Amino acid sequence: MKTRATAMAPASVANVAVGFDLLGFSVAAAGDEVTVERTSKPGVEIGDVTGVVTQVPKDSAKNTATAGLVRLAHDLDLKFGFRVSIKKGIPLGSGMGGSAASAVAAIVAANAVLDKPLTEADMLSYSLIGEAQASGSYHADNVAPSFKGGLTIARVRSIDDRPRVELVSLPAIPETYTVLVHPQLILETKTARGVLKADIHLKSHVEQAANLAGFIAACYRQDFDLLKRSFADVVIEPQRAHLIPGFHDVKDSAMKAGSLGCSISGAGPSVFAWVRGRELAEAVEKAMIGAFARAGLESKSWVSSLTDAPAAKVIA
Amino acid sequence: MKTRATAMAPASVANVAVGFDLLGFSVAAAGDEVTVERTSKPGVEIGDVTGVVTQVPKDSAKNTATAGLVRLAHDLDLKFGFRVSIKKGIPLGSGMGGSAASAVAAIVAANAVLDKPLTEADMLSYSLIGEAQASGSYHADNVAPSFKGGLTIARVRSIDDRPRVELVSLPAIPETYTVLVHPQLILETKTARGVLKADIHLKSHVEQAANLAGFIAACYRQDFDLLKRSFADVVIEPQRAHLIPGFHDVKDSAMKAGSLGCSISGAGPSVFAWVRGRELAEAVEKAMIGAFARAGLESKSWVSSLTDAPAAKVIA
Repeated sequence: MKTRATAMAPASVANVAVGFDLLGFSVAAAGDEVTVERTSKPGVEIGDVTGVVTQVPKDSAKNTATAGLVRLAHDLDLKFGFRVSIKKGIPLGSGMGGSAASAVAAIVAANAVLDKPLTEADMLSYSLIGEAQASGSYHADNVAPSFKGGLTIARVRSIDDRPRVELVSLPAIPETYTVLVHPQLILETKTARGVLKADIHLKSHVEQAANLAGFIAACYRQDFDLLKRSFADVVIEPQRAHLIPGFHDVKDSAMKAGSLGCSISGAGPSVFAWVRGRELAEAVEKAMIGAFARAGLESKSWVSSLTDAPAAKVIA
Repeated sequence: MKTRATAMAPASVANVAVGFDLLGFSVAAAGDEVTVERTSKPGVEIGDVTGVVTQVPKDSAKNTATAGLVRLAHDLDLKFGFRVSIKKGIPLGSGMGGSAASAVAAIVAANAVLDKPLTEADMLSYSLIGEAQASGSYHADNVAPSFKGGLTIARVRSIDDRPRVELVSLPAIPETYTVLVHPQLILETKTARGVLKADIHLKSHVEQAANLAGFIAACYRQDFDLLKRSFADVVIEPQRAHLIPGFHDVKDSAMKAGSLGCSISGAGPSVFAWVRGRELAEAVEKAMIGAFARAGLESKSWVSSLTDAPAAKVIA
């Protein structure tokens, strides 16, 4: 039996323009790696923290990678403990789902050293408990795609005092590529959530619902025209755009270069675009980097295939 | 060449719980028939009006069946006119899409007597202009399914000063039956729209979006469980339920009898349910009629297959 395992969980893009707190997809860009080792003493302790982020909470009940394990150990009344090492590949406050990736990687690694494996539903539930330490609330639009891979609809329901994720995988249209651009800027999720008004116009709701419906139908119909017409966020993006210097120029540049749609990745400041074909995606990537540069921001970027978008997995 | 044609357009259920102003499906229950005859004198005149509604506007620019024809004649600069007879099969203020059916049937009949047939896009556009006489605004969730048949996503965009319908047909899950129950009560669309607040909570928007996303994915996946879990209106139904005596009892009765979901048909007062299988649908129908009876309302009802839901057509 394994007493030590390492898992990787990928970065992810949440919201996806039309699905605030609902839609997300994984990205073969960066990822977080978590190593979980069984210890004889019950409890969850945090070991090494390395990579692009090292300043993380040392209290295991407050750390996104370990809070889910604390709850898991409690629920299963485990007689052993976990030592958890974290290697962050996803920058803090980047809008690339780093908190979710740490939470997911920890649960997937822990699962590999349990006597009896967890169900997928339990793994998602405990990952959500971990991720909520960072975001302050339960929403699964990063956790679900980071765990499952690909493009997902994910909603959270509370059942028996535990958050449960209802996950539906959506088909990605073949030839769709993601461009993800991360400007060198930190934007806390809590800040980006804080700017949102509590209410929206019914008219905006109807327009956004039309976009969401068209977007989902387009995925099933493999209809790039419908996807492009539906790819617009009239609810969240207008409220957050000002938090990202140069956002409108970045988006315009992506659209002019031929992208299907472009919006804020999760809570930002990263911006993503979907593009048909790799070559065009690389042109869009250049255009977006150029626009951030005009706003005085250096950025890092990735182009990856949506159809091959990775799931979390045990890597050692 | 035909100089006289009659077309039938079916009743339809709009909103469909999760898709206010967006989703709709046609129902093989009632329908409106419109006969259009070419006249040598330009202009649109209203002839006989028969059937379950006879009190309709006599001004052809204000009548739902003829307003689209007035605009069509103007746009095409027609050198002939139309005489229009209307046979209403759909009760007034029933929430069964009667205005849309008259508008659609008129355009489909007129199209059959034109020298050059209209495009589908034009037929939808002129139908919408007709229907707007009754509802006061452009929304295509009755016009689209009444014209096209089946279950549709329909949004309206204004292009070149004319409303355009963007229509996407959704696959109905085989074995799905519609129960449509019309209590003997008139509820004007304008009244039912008048009770709606201009704003909704962002939280409700997210929940409704999750329902809509699950609903559409369920149609493509043929997943009755997901459909049932997603079949809930947290935005519109709670604001309109009080306009329909006995609504909560009708809905509870439908759900207890085994329906997949139950909500207000369009602006009401009709209520619809989706049910898996015809036999169960008939049990749900009885339960709903019984509940309306307890509220002191007689009702008329129909059970029909969603997979065979009819489109408008020329019948003579």
